[in-house]
Amino acid sequence: MEADLITIGDEILIGQIVDTNSAWMAQHLNDEGINIRQIISISDQPDHITQTLLESGKKSSIVLVTGGLGPTRDDRTKTALCTFFETQLIENNDVLDHVIQLLAPRGIAINSLNRDQALVPETAIVLPNKLGTAPGLWFEKDQTIYVFMPGVPFEMKYLMEYEVIPRIKKLFNTNSILHRTVLTQGLAESALAEKITHWEDSLPDSIGLAYLPSPHSVRLRLSARGDNENYLKKLLDQKIEELTAVIPDYIFGYEEETLAGNIGKILLERNLTLAIAESCTGGNIAHSITLNPGSSAYFKGGIVVYSNETKINILGIDPNLISDRGAVSKDVVEEMALGARRIMNSDFAIATSGIAGPDGGTIEKPVGTVWIAIAGPDFVISKVFNFANHRERNIIRSTQTALNMLRLKLLKDKL
Amino acid sequence: MEADLITIGDEILIGQIVDTNSAWMAQHLNDEGINIRQIISISDQPDHITQTLLESGKKSSIVLVTGGLGPTRDDRTKTALCTFFETQLIENNDVLDHVIQLLAPRGIAINSLNRDQALVPETAIVLPNKLGTAPGLWFEKDQTIYVFMPGVPFEMKYLMEYEVIPRIKKLFNTNSILHRTVLTQGLAESALAEKITHWEDSLPDSIGLAYLPSPHSVRLRLSARGDNENYLKKLLDQKIEELTAVIPDYIFGYEEETLAGNIGKILLERNLTLAIAESCTGGNIAHSITLNPGSSAYFKGGIVVYSNETKINILGIDPNLISDRGAVSKDVVEEMALGARRIMNSDFAIATSGIAGPDGGTIEKPVGTVWIAIAGPDFVISKVFNFANHRERNIIRSTQTALNMLRLKLLKDKL
Repeated sequence: MEADLITIGDEILIGQIVDTNSAWMAQHLNDEGINIRQIISISDQPDHITQTLLESGKKSSIVLVTGGLGPTRDDRTKTALCTFFETQLIENNDVLDHVIQLLAPRGIAINSLNRDQALVPETAIVLPNKLGTAPGLWFEKDQTIYVFMPGVPFEMKYLMEYEVIPRIKKLFNTNSILHRTVLTQGLAESALAEKITHWEDSLPDSIGLAYLPSPHSVRLRLSARGDNENYLKKLLDQKIEELTAVIPDYIFGYEEETLAGNIGKILLERNLTLAIAESCTGGNIAHSITLNPGSSAYFKGGIVVYSNETKINILGIDPNLISDRGAVSKDVVEEMALGARRIMNSDFAIATSGIAGPDGGTIEKPVGTVWIAIAGPDFVISKVFNFANHRERNIIRSTQTALNMLRLKLLKDKL
Repeated sequence: MEADLITIGDEILIGQIVDTNSAWMAQHLNDEGINIRQIISISDQPDHITQTLLESGKKSSIVLVTGGLGPTRDDRTKTALCTFFETQLIENNDVLDHVIQLLAPRGIAINSLNRDQALVPETAIVLPNKLGTAPGLWFEKDQTIYVFMPGVPFEMKYLMEYEVIPRIKKLFNTNSILHRTVLTQGLAESALAEKITHWEDSLPDSIGLAYLPSPHSVRLRLSARGDNENYLKKLLDQKIEELTAVIPDYIFGYEEETLAGNIGKILLERNLTLAIAESCTGGNIAHSITLNPGSSAYFKGGIVVYSNETKINILGIDPNLISDRGAVSKDVVEEMALGARRIMNSDFAIATSGIAGPDGGTIEKPVGTVWIAIAGPDFVISKVFNFANHRERNIIRSTQTALNMLRLKLLKDKL
């Protein structure tokens, strides 16, 4: 079973927005055993739309389209649909009622733009959109189904989860494709590949392997295809167990886990708390931790010390230490971690101090030099790193490396 | 002049990574007057690759391909290229030397995977990649140029800026397309559309308008096409000036600016400083501010108070106030802003306290309830908002709204 994904909108073709919808849709369709044949982004010209629908419909039995269904007048999709499906727009009372009810509590009176959202092609099955004003539209034509959804990501996701996927599952019987992802931290792509080369050679033909590097981590994706889902599951479990034995310290999680989420789980299980003192990471470690629901159970708080004054006044760092050794130094970063742990009364603390760039580097301490410290009940450790010459990437790498140092410390000590 | 963008890799089709490269490339090609006809993501099967190259080459005179050129063995692109361009792989000494020199300072010895990166198709022009081990490859065939680049974003960007775009500019004479983006904050898409409807009606046919909503802002993109670049520039300037007169308070910037960057500029110009006390935003405001190079000149620091204990001990909030009014209240958020300003000795302070979700909501204070305060030399103001029922979106909206409150206060007071 194959599907084509089509994204409509000039804004993608001129690069003003990134198409994140297709990735999400691909992932969820894959889980249902539906292969994505192709992802394509086209303009919102009606003839461009109808031509692409025609071509995709010839090759795939499912065509999912996002974009072109918003309240503003740059949306020409519905006109194209009427041409393609040989139908006309009619006002739908359910949709109109829903739009009115959705806007009322926000104190917004319905205007003509919102009212137009209730116009739908007559032959479409209307998929109610609880989270927005534009409904989903479902058509069947020449043994192909075509579904149109708004481009707003959370509205599309709602429609996919509650309307589109359940209907597709009812209509088609699908083969099994299983994906598992192993998340690693601490090795570059080529070094990782070398370390696991024997394991990789042992993979059977039914399992494919892909390396997915990013500044956050190198992910390994295993994809298994076949008829027998239970067998594939066992095979994947076994191979991942073998991989874990090869690189135990470099794997921090699986699937959609994050390093910060993984640390949160460990802290919660052991009833431990964390504090953070950030300089070069500027709040990004705290942000990564607090993206996790329930993080207030183990995260006491963080301090972003972006001036020496703040380091001295709030964290209690000795001003002489800063002038003697520099703010980016082993001594200062360790004092920062100890200070954060003390004033926030936590079990553990992370501290970072570095030169994020683009300016501020010297010959001894070039841009990318980052000191990271971890303080715990009876220790403080620190390490210096040299990351890339790019501010945002430095911040991400420093964040991930700091979190990984804490993770390893938590695991090795098994407190 | 039209170009096709092709992205190679199963990882995009199964939705494991989002294709951000195409957006970046589209934007930069557009600036050179090159229209993107289509963006397409395909698998890394060699026959799929050759077939797509053939079809795109028929329709566009420029075909740019990313992905499939990394050090690990899931990359099958080069074999497909040899088939398509009827050539063979040979070892390139310059590339091999570069790979060795790139890895040496990082203490990495060359392995067979890195060594394979020096194999290039014989008929390709090799584009040196200063930032990575895989070079770019440039081919010309039947009046179409084909360029292959690694999928790692910063390597692709380097190759585009220093190798590909300069060569394309030399080869083709291109027509003018000018884009301008106006960034707004504080109005939903449909409310904004209603407010600017007369202005929108006044736009000439040569200017197109698109609404680009996101949790960060609603962006308005104006696109002008024509022969006379100077005339188009003047026309766009005039129309943006008229728009600014219609919605002066809702526009916070243009093009790639960010709200945090805009505030940084104002603070720097007026020699003012900022401190932040965050609860529900968990460090994201500090992170947004510190993403900007040079932010240490005006940002004193931030405190993420994720426990009442930290609110009391570090910010000096009265414990009775927290128990009487709740941590998410007007009184507490104002005290947080005043406390942050006091202990970090800044001119201004932002504070947030809210329920980010998914848990912790009550009937009086449902998930999404967020108090935001701004403190300055002689005032503290606060406002309550009700954002969405989704943790990450709440954090982003609270961050943007808090920054916008500070921006308006800075502009209105003209200190």
